[in-house]
Amino acid sequence: MSIRIGIFGYGNLGRGVECAIRHNPDMALAAVFTRRAPESVRILTEGVPVYSAKDIASHKEEIDVLILCGGSATDLPVQTPECARYFNVVDSFDTHARIPEHFANVDKAAKEGGHVGIISVGWDPGMFSLNRLYANAILTDGKDYTFWGKGVSQGHSDAVRRIAGVKDAKQYTIPVPEALEKVRAGEQPELTTRQKHTRECFVVPEEGADLARIEQEIKTMPNYFDEYDTTVHFISMEEFKRDHSAIPHGGFVIRSGRTGWENENQHVIEYSLKLDSNPEFTSSVIIAYARAAYRMAKEGNTGCKTVFDIPPAYLSAMDGEYLRSHML
Amino acid sequence: MSIRIGIFGYGNLGRGVECAIRHNPDMALAAVFTRRAPESVRILTEGVPVYSAKDIASHKEEIDVLILCGGSATDLPVQTPECARYFNVVDSFDTHARIPEHFANVDKAAKEGGHVGIISVGWDPGMFSLNRLYANAILTDGKDYTFWGKGVSQGHSDAVRRIAGVKDAKQYTIPVPEALEKVRAGEQPELTTRQKHTRECFVVPEEGADLARIEQEIKTMPNYFDEYDTTVHFISMEEFKRDHSAIPHGGFVIRSGRTGWENENQHVIEYSLKLDSNPEFTSSVIIAYARAAYRMAKEGNTGCKTVFDIPPAYLSAMDGEYLRSHML
Repeated sequence: MSIRIGIFGYGNLGRGVECAIRHNPDMALAAVFTRRAPESVRILTEGVPVYSAKDIASHKEEIDVLILCGGSATDLPVQTPECARYFNVVDSFDTHARIPEHFANVDKAAKEGGHVGIISVGWDPGMFSLNRLYANAILTDGKDYTFWGKGVSQGHSDAVRRIAGVKDAKQYTIPVPEALEKVRAGEQPELTTRQKHTRECFVVPEEGADLARIEQEIKTMPNYFDEYDTTVHFISMEEFKRDHSAIPHGGFVIRSGRTGWENENQHVIEYSLKLDSNPEFTSSVIIAYARAAYRMAKEGNTGCKTVFDIPPAYLSAMDGEYLRSHML
Repeated sequence: MSIRIGIFGYGNLGRGVECAIRHNPDMALAAVFTRRAPESVRILTEGVPVYSAKDIASHKEEIDVLILCGGSATDLPVQTPECARYFNVVDSFDTHARIPEHFANVDKAAKEGGHVGIISVGWDPGMFSLNRLYANAILTDGKDYTFWGKGVSQGHSDAVRRIAGVKDAKQYTIPVPEALEKVRAGEQPELTTRQKHTRECFVVPEEGADLARIEQEIKTMPNYFDEYDTTVHFISMEEFKRDHSAIPHGGFVIRSGRTGWENENQHVIEYSLKLDSNPEFTSSVIIAYARAAYRMAKEGNTGCKTVFDIPPAYLSAMDGEYLRSHML
């Protein structure tokens, strides 16, 4: 019997989860929950119901694991603990600074409800976090680096779109190649924000807008752009749609460190991702962890977990014997 | 109190474990066991006893985790199960084809003895295996590639040294850059053995040896060299000692795969290692898993485990709260 997955929130991530289920034959989409009018939401999978999020608790017997696909700013801090009372849940909460608080809330609710909740699943937090942990446990004397990109930052694109005279915009975060090379060579450089990444914006201006003013507003925007070298390109809507509709991303987690009786040897561990679609990759990670949530709940586990707590074998549809003879 | 580590076998790997303990303040070397005359073995750590391997069982109260540092061909298949009766053990058994059998033997002994045994720990098997598993669980529709090097293959170096007229030799395995690039670009090429790696040998010939014959014997050696493009360099002992004393290694695990409703998006996951010292890095991985063995045993676990079974957090000296706020 398939693991019955529910999706709460049907945006880019929800649609990504739906696609990921199609790539995992041991999973089935059981229902989609939305805060919009259910009849207005068209999903890809035939024959699967779309319900109002208001009634979610009444569907608890139909779902093995519920995937929360809302945003980290306001949705998940409320939804994940609430839903953990009724369901095993997985979310991709990514506000790093608020993880301890979110963990505590989900842990309490999941324990009270007798469920498993896995939070902050994806690639960062998620696979990048795992690689930081493994690399730190192995090379205890060393230095960590995370580079993001080349890829679309949703938050920075939104910030540019809020500027007066901007019709649409996309922002790419790009690692500085020289910095990456120094880190890879094990030089353990001290790098400023500006030395690690550059930012590139593609902006569709409204007709007659003051381009110089828009460019200036972008480049000096506090927190978002002022600490970076930023390039701004003004393009037509046609060009924008043709060349900038995708949501690629990726990045690098690198740790270099020393071993030996007198620290005489150097090592570099590097993990990197090159992703055509950020939400689809994130969803694929989430679905693997949904399998883990299902299994851990079956074994009687309850409470909040992160990727740090999950034995890797729980992610795979294959059994231990297969994994040992084919992947070890 | 420190985790008390025992080392069984004091070669390159045993010495690496000794060094790794020095980089982990929650660990202490308790004893070294050797099959040689104990008084003939000089170790780096002051004040730590060297015992005869014959008496190992009598020291079981002094050791929390015993690290088996022998070879996979004949030592570990016997030693790891034997020692798992008396100790929590970690080994780096790396004969991939015999892992299921070794697992069964260690599992039986460890369960009977009430201990935890973690086998096949290192980088391949070990970190590379983990990355294969994670990447396969995420990108279910894709293709795996493992490249080794640039690095010293001990087995191939030994094979060259056995040829008549060879005084000393070192063999480097080198990934073919073009193959690596194709894989990284997500092309999912079919690659023959010859297309993936080249082999480079540095040979110190005995005086008057027939160099052409040696080169021919190397290049045509079945299993070891005949399926590869091999380069042979004859050098002096002086040059050999100056330039080829280290034991570097490394490699790449890459999986590319597709997601999306119609497989429309492509992703590449890459994990790579660049190691100055193969045995010291392997030892550093082993010591992190020794911490996990200690913790799992404390919690009442018994039996054989692999890297697939260990929650990542168990490897770190930091607690869950610290890990969540600093690495997630």
